[in-house]
Amino acid sequence: MTFTEGGVTAAKGFKAADAAAGIKYQGRPDMAMILSSVMCKAAGTFTTNVVKAAPVIWDRDIVKGSGLAQAVVINSGIANACTGEEGMKYCRETASAVFEKLAVPENAVLVASTGVIGMQLRIDRIRDGISMMSGSLSDTIEAGHKAARAIMTTDTKPKEAAVSFRAGGKDIVLGGMCKGSGMIHPNMCTMLCFLTTDINISQELLQEALSCSIQDTFNMVSVDGDTSTNDTVLLLANGLARNPEITEKNDDYYSFCEALKEVNTKLCRMIAGDGEGATALFEVEIKGADTKEQAKVLARSVVSSNLVKAAICGHDANWGRILCAMGYSGAEFDPDRTDLYFESAAGKIQIMSAGTGCCFSEEEATRILSEPEVKAIAVIGKGPESAVAWGCDLTHGYIDINADYRS
Amino acid sequence: MTFTEGGVTAAKGFKAADAAAGIKYQGRPDMAMILSSVMCKAAGTFTTNVVKAAPVIWDRDIVKGSGLAQAVVINSGIANACTGEEGMKYCRETASAVFEKLAVPENAVLVASTGVIGMQLRIDRIRDGISMMSGSLSDTIEAGHKAARAIMTTDTKPKEAAVSFRAGGKDIVLGGMCKGSGMIHPNMCTMLCFLTTDINISQELLQEALSCSIQDTFNMVSVDGDTSTNDTVLLLANGLARNPEITEKNDDYYSFCEALKEVNTKLCRMIAGDGEGATALFEVEIKGADTKEQAKVLARSVVSSNLVKAAICGHDANWGRILCAMGYSGAEFDPDRTDLYFESAAGKIQIMSAGTGCCFSEEEATRILSEPEVKAIAVIGKGPESAVAWGCDLTHGYIDINADYRS
Repeated sequence: MTFTEGGVTAAKGFKAADAAAGIKYQGRPDMAMILSSVMCKAAGTFTTNVVKAAPVIWDRDIVKGSGLAQAVVINSGIANACTGEEGMKYCRETASAVFEKLAVPENAVLVASTGVIGMQLRIDRIRDGISMMSGSLSDTIEAGHKAARAIMTTDTKPKEAAVSFRAGGKDIVLGGMCKGSGMIHPNMCTMLCFLTTDINISQELLQEALSCSIQDTFNMVSVDGDTSTNDTVLLLANGLARNPEITEKNDDYYSFCEALKEVNTKLCRMIAGDGEGATALFEVEIKGADTKEQAKVLARSVVSSNLVKAAICGHDANWGRILCAMGYSGAEFDPDRTDLYFESAAGKIQIMSAGTGCCFSEEEATRILSEPEVKAIAVIGKGPESAVAWGCDLTHGYIDINADYRS
Repeated sequence: MTFTEGGVTAAKGFKAADAAAGIKYQGRPDMAMILSSVMCKAAGTFTTNVVKAAPVIWDRDIVKGSGLAQAVVINSGIANACTGEEGMKYCRETASAVFEKLAVPENAVLVASTGVIGMQLRIDRIRDGISMMSGSLSDTIEAGHKAARAIMTTDTKPKEAAVSFRAGGKDIVLGGMCKGSGMIHPNMCTMLCFLTTDINISQELLQEALSCSIQDTFNMVSVDGDTSTNDTVLLLANGLARNPEITEKNDDYYSFCEALKEVNTKLCRMIAGDGEGATALFEVEIKGADTKEQAKVLARSVVSSNLVKAAICGHDANWGRILCAMGYSGAEFDPDRTDLYFESAAGKIQIMSAGTGCCFSEEEATRILSEPEVKAIAVIGKGPESAVAWGCDLTHGYIDINADYRS
């Protein structure tokens, strides 16, 4: 498997477009579209928030119904969440506009929105945006890149990844883009993500591969502990690589799962590192656990702790806060058998041994914690399981962004 | 019942003292002592964090063992958490120093610490502090007030409350002090709190009244979602009011429970309003719930949301974040039947009706949210239950304090 250039247009048969439709932002693209030349198997995972945005309900019905889709329409600026029956109507009208322009059946049009909760969309502008994008769809890397920019809200960087690998004697490509910077906390999935692949695979296995992959990737990201109303990961497979259809868990299936893991992990790290106000990507690894679940609960608790995140912001090796966050996580472990390390490009240092502090150099620890990517590693025993979670530091920038986001 | 002056020295037979022992801070008092003239029934509730500080283990053994205590020794600056066997030894030596100076049996000396996790105490300084305080114990309001100052860490204000009420034909007094500003999140209890009363009551009922009271008070406070390793509420009853001993749940028992609720609620509001970096006390009330637990889970989720707290900091009526936080709380409710209001000394405004936004004046909402105490009220149905949670806004001050707390 090798990483390759591009995102949603990397796989065969996928085009993308973007448009400045004036949904809420002025003077920047705020709509994107993905179109496959043929019908795709569609898989999806959605927020577990009781409050679900209208597009989440729309997409879930398609994925759980026919499991087939050919186009995705995305807007940033307004989330179409807490918008009642009117919000659902806008999903239908979006799909209807795509049918008019591109002759893709309404029930094969997926919809996604991200932005402020509670405002209604201007559906006339959505229609205009679809009209503009229908004329400019392109399969170039650049078109995918522009789409990745258009779906950004408080993100500072577009987020794309793609890999190519072999399955069934064919070259397969899997690419994707995502957005997400605030209201990011693991639960089913944590933002908008769109994955496209030309692999030929049954819808059931496509969904299973996706559902499985997000458990170790998107569900292990946290920026601020707030699980969004709009979280969506969509995965479209159009089969144009012409490998024999994957209908059982054979080597090709596992190659595809591995590709999904690589792409999703890369996208997750991009989200965490670009968390609102973040100056550092903060990775937490728990090793030596008896069960996977125990390792995940501990890793997520540390990466979600405001106090730990503020210490990372200050490059402060305040390890007591890490042990404290492990302690209230809800997972059992023995603090007196736990070792802690910090690691980054600047080196690795042990800071705690068997539950009490080591004699370590504060200067060295600060130097290690001053890198743009820092990692805490807790070894809690001799068990076989481990887990990694991704987050970021808590900074003044986060307050600046969120104390008055709506205006 | 009437509120009265003072804190831990308000009830008959209780003295307090403080000392600048140089535990970690320089030039300010950092130790306090409470002494009853006679043996007390002792009740306590402690952190649910798996990582428990040494004093938590020490106190729990006393409360669950004999249930009797006469003195409490407290230090700020160092938490004596993650300190292994050495930390436990310091608890024993602290008690032993009190026995030497005041002839109180070691197993009747409760110990509490708050501050940095992972550093060892200088036990010689603890001993010196006990020596100083043993000579200056006083039953004045001022002595209690100084003790409340000495136990502060990042708190900006001392926190005391006291009430008097009648039971068994006698005047009873219940007073207390607490500290807590960061690492504050409901789970059993959320900081250090010391309550003293002269009521005559069995140890079993004393513990039951306390355990019950904290469910609706300290367990409903959150500053930053981090449940401390040192959380402790201790309640000493010395019986000197000479009411007939309360041994059943009669009117006197319920009068005492009511007094506990009043004192604890007042202390909770002080903690939330003095949360690290806070500019506003933020109160969340859930009404119309079917069950108490449902109301509490929803209220705690909203008051703990970084995004909601940042919006309160910006005086921004960003109600979508409130509904979002209710949605991921884990409690079931129907967003489409939910109404939302903001309220403060400046007025009350409805911002959401049946799950979608109302037409409200942003200026009026901002005015209401600019008060030092603001409240969000969500009415989720027609059920009989409600709950209140207390927190504060998330500000630049929180980052300033926590990005480099240890230095």
